[in-house]
Amino acid sequence: MNDADAAIRGVMAEQEAAWDRGDIPAFMAGYSDTICFISKKGKTCSKAAVTANYLKTYPDKRTMGDLQFGIHEIVMAGTDNAWLTGTWELYRAADTLGGGFSLLWAKEQVGWRIVRDHTY
Amino acid sequence: MNDADAAIRGVMAEQEAAWDRGDIPAFMAGYSDTICFISKKGKTCSKAAVTANYLKTYPDKRTMGDLQFGIHEIVMAGTDNAWLTGTWELYRAADTLGGGFSLLWAKEQVGWRIVRDHTY
Repeated sequence: MNDADAAIRGVMAEQEAAWDRGDIPAFMAGYSDTICFISKKGKTCSKAAVTANYLKTYPDKRTMGDLQFGIHEIVMAGTDNAWLTGTWELYRAADTLGGGFSLLWAKEQVGWRIVRDHTY
Repeated sequence: MNDADAAIRGVMAEQEAAWDRGDIPAFMAGYSDTICFISKKGKTCSKAAVTANYLKTYPDKRTMGDLQFGIHEIVMAGTDNAWLTGTWELYRAADTLGGGFSLLWAKEQVGWRIVRDHTY
């Protein structure tokens, strides 16, 4: 595992922990300001817009549940970008949701951040 | 549109044309030998294995139908990699299939090739 790999896994772990605390703003720290989130519903760009969507879809701890990421692989793309494929599961009192994602990471001044999140 | 962007779009156009001719080996020319294809069914690595899956799922021109890609964006990751998000639709006599994908591209000696294909 190289430094980038470890740093990216660290950000993912922080995201998971923030989510499970019900703290969406802290969860969003893993995203770049230039994030675009792509799903079946379409594409949402900017951290503010993506944050607003999360807050709307997951208004409280009950709807947020317990998030678990599965990291399948991290592929370096040059030195300052990486591709990550993985799965997510959301365990809630009422149901369990889940799916997969591909992330494009960029090494920004503040650290590794997600610039594209293709989740489904 | 830079050179990489144009080259990648060219490969996608060749893939579409090959598919519509019913020519899966020519379609596969857009993939790297080190391709991993990720879907809900799991992950398949190597060009030979991915080709075998396509040939099994799409044994003839009737099942292949008419493929149409929609390219949403191409994001450069350094000079030798790129991220592409898009959609695919398969128009067949009996039905229409479709979904989205994220691709990781690498500039190889032979040209731009897909090294990761996350399709769903």
